Amino acid sequence: MYNFEYKNPVKIIFGKNTISKVANEVPKNAKIMLTYGGGSIKKNGVYNQVMDALKGAEILEFGGIEVNPHYETCMKAVEIAKAENIDFLLSVGGGSVLDATKFIAAAALYTNGDPWDILVKGGTVVNAIPIGAVLTLPATGSEMNGNSVITRISTLEKMAFSSLKVMPQFSILDPECVFTLPDKQVANGIVDAFIHVMEQYLTFDVNSPLQDRFAESILTTLIEEGPKVLENRNDYDAVANFMWSATMALNGLIGVGVPQDWATHGIGHELTAFHGIDHARTLAIVLPGVMNIKRESKKEKILQYGKRIWGITEGTDDEKIDAAISKTVAFFESVGLPTTLPDYNVPEESVTKIVARFKKRFYKLGEKSDIGYQEIEQILMDRF
Amino acid sequence: MYNFEYKNPVKIIFGKNTISKVANEVPKNAKIMLTYGGGSIKKNGVYNQVMDALKGAEILEFGGIEVNPHYETCMKAVEIAKAENIDFLLSVGGGSVLDATKFIAAAALYTNGDPWDILVKGGTVVNAIPIGAVLTLPATGSEMNGNSVITRISTLEKMAFSSLKVMPQFSILDPECVFTLPDKQVANGIVDAFIHVMEQYLTFDVNSPLQDRFAESILTTLIEEGPKVLENRNDYDAVANFMWSATMALNGLIGVGVPQDWATHGIGHELTAFHGIDHARTLAIVLPGVMNIKRESKKEKILQYGKRIWGITEGTDDEKIDAAISKTVAFFESVGLPTTLPDYNVPEESVTKIVARFKKRFYKLGEKSDIGYQEIEQILMDRF
Repeated sequence: MYNFEYKNPVKIIFGKNTISKVANEVPKNAKIMLTYGGGSIKKNGVYNQVMDALKGAEILEFGGIEVNPHYETCMKAVEIAKAENIDFLLSVGGGSVLDATKFIAAAALYTNGDPWDILVKGGTVVNAIPIGAVLTLPATGSEMNGNSVITRISTLEKMAFSSLKVMPQFSILDPECVFTLPDKQVANGIVDAFIHVMEQYLTFDVNSPLQDRFAESILTTLIEEGPKVLENRNDYDAVANFMWSATMALNGLIGVGVPQDWATHGIGHELTAFHGIDHARTLAIVLPGVMNIKRESKKEKILQYGKRIWGITEGTDDEKIDAAISKTVAFFESVGLPTTLPDYNVPEESVTKIVARFKKRFYKLGEKSDIGYQEIEQILMDRF
Repeated sequence: MYNFEYKNPVKIIFGKNTISKVANEVPKNAKIMLTYGGGSIKKNGVYNQVMDALKGAEILEFGGIEVNPHYETCMKAVEIAKAENIDFLLSVGGGSVLDATKFIAAAALYTNGDPWDILVKGGTVVNAIPIGAVLTLPATGSEMNGNSVITRISTLEKMAFSSLKVMPQFSILDPECVFTLPDKQVANGIVDAFIHVMEQYLTFDVNSPLQDRFAESILTTLIEEGPKVLENRNDYDAVANFMWSATMALNGLIGVGVPQDWATHGIGHELTAFHGIDHARTLAIVLPGVMNIKRESKKEKILQYGKRIWGITEGTDDEKIDAAISKTVAFFESVGLPTTLPDYNVPEESVTKIVARFKKRFYKLGEKSDIGYQEIEQILMDRF
């Protein structure tokens, strides 16, 4: 096991009828900016629950945050937050709203130049407006971490940053919010959480059996509970188990003391930036390619994954690895996510464009930093 | 799954050569009380590492904290902490030192009467002196929770309290501290951690498969890594995996949203109070009795435990439960912990004394609050 440091002070409030507890968590007399997305919270009752709970508080609304939230939109909120001296940001929505809120929180107090630097130059977040969250969609894990991914539309760049300073003070997770979600969002959430685990688990081995088993616990639970949620959106226990699994998938816990990959995310972000494909779907496309190309360096872990998650015990190592990839693909497709580039009408020329972008970057992806532009080309060509 | 709230802000610093990092974590200019136990930290080099790192800081030492720390000892430290205006407590040792430090931290700032009330009357801890920890012995999980167990020698009472206010600001876990531990302490630590998991896992079922699998992950890892540590104390990876498992066993995570039992601890504490038996050993005695007596209400979970942890699939339900209990007993004995009362020369009259004490209490134990003094008598008589 590697040395590590771990701290996660987010207060989780989990369960049915918990949204009203937001009143106990938001600081008294705070001037609040309530951030949200396309307005589903106004249809499903969540907005009303929040506003009822916060009756009497000074609340300014900032809606219209997109899926894959735009830097340009966030900067509008930053201007308002500064002008209005906002001192608390309340994110009501899914991971996109929360990611945007994190960037707004950091950018509003960023004094070291252009806030875009936070995303592209690793500009340090020294201060941020405190954040709270009411989560309406299990998927990204953003509710219990300091990560945020933002897209600059003018240049089609999708970039991430991470800071303890933008971890929510609290996150309220009411599984009943899932009852009204469409199949597509649930399926995306299942696969997003699944691949968050895979990126921290499917690496070379450093003898960390507890982290491995925790990761496998989440994978198994997603495989078991995810389809139940798709089948019956009102199955409270299944929804709750899915929601908690998605949070645990990316709150840092399973990633302590182990190498992490994140190549699938890095490549996937480009597919979203160029083609607007849903984040989770890009991951479902890319992961099987990464597994295939890195079958040697990840061999032991892929075999362990195949055996423990899918019961694969027969055949040569290569046959077992092929079977593990097939099972993974079949799972993604069974919940409704196609996994090849032609499924999304992505032409081969796009691969050229994406590869050209990575060629210009100084870093390589993967837990061994050995996935450069040539390997990325191989991975993407594997997905035709 | 039940509704729950979860917050654990402890910063964990884990790995080899990490003790010197204490210098970055203790507040600047703090007047520190360094608490420790019988002096092993002065023999194994940990004390010197801490003092070197904190060179120049104002440090007052309070040593001599016992295993099963005494209220009377803690109160001496409280007097000194008050008189000297101590503003940071640094616990260097195992769970007993840390538990004592938590009580000292709370008692020193307790203004609502006798600090003993914190333990016996649920007196609320409103403030506490901030705490940091350098952990030298994996076992209790105290390094990442707000729990503390204190014994009043004058009345032979062993009582617990829990408060977010006494969670350590940071805990440094250097697995190399384990290299110099005697077999007995390692074995006790393995069993203590194992039973912490069991008390949160082996209850009636509330459909929380992720928490179940996390619990099983820790059990399996303790069964796998514990004996390796006993065999070769310098096996760094085994020691690190054991140490991290012990922390995860009682940091609250596997207990969210599920019922919890703690009857084994409640009864075990009395065996320590009356007979001075090591905490972990009392648990090893009592748990098989609880499993046996509660085989009906815990049936589904005992069968799941037997199957997933020990591969028990043959026989009637009762035979499977018997086998699960036998496997558990055999594991404890394999690491060196006897599991019956005669093994510790406890006479039947002691059962009478313990039962009489529970008869006077208004509460019952167990996740269903259905373990009263009669059941406690059954459990203890089962262990002859």
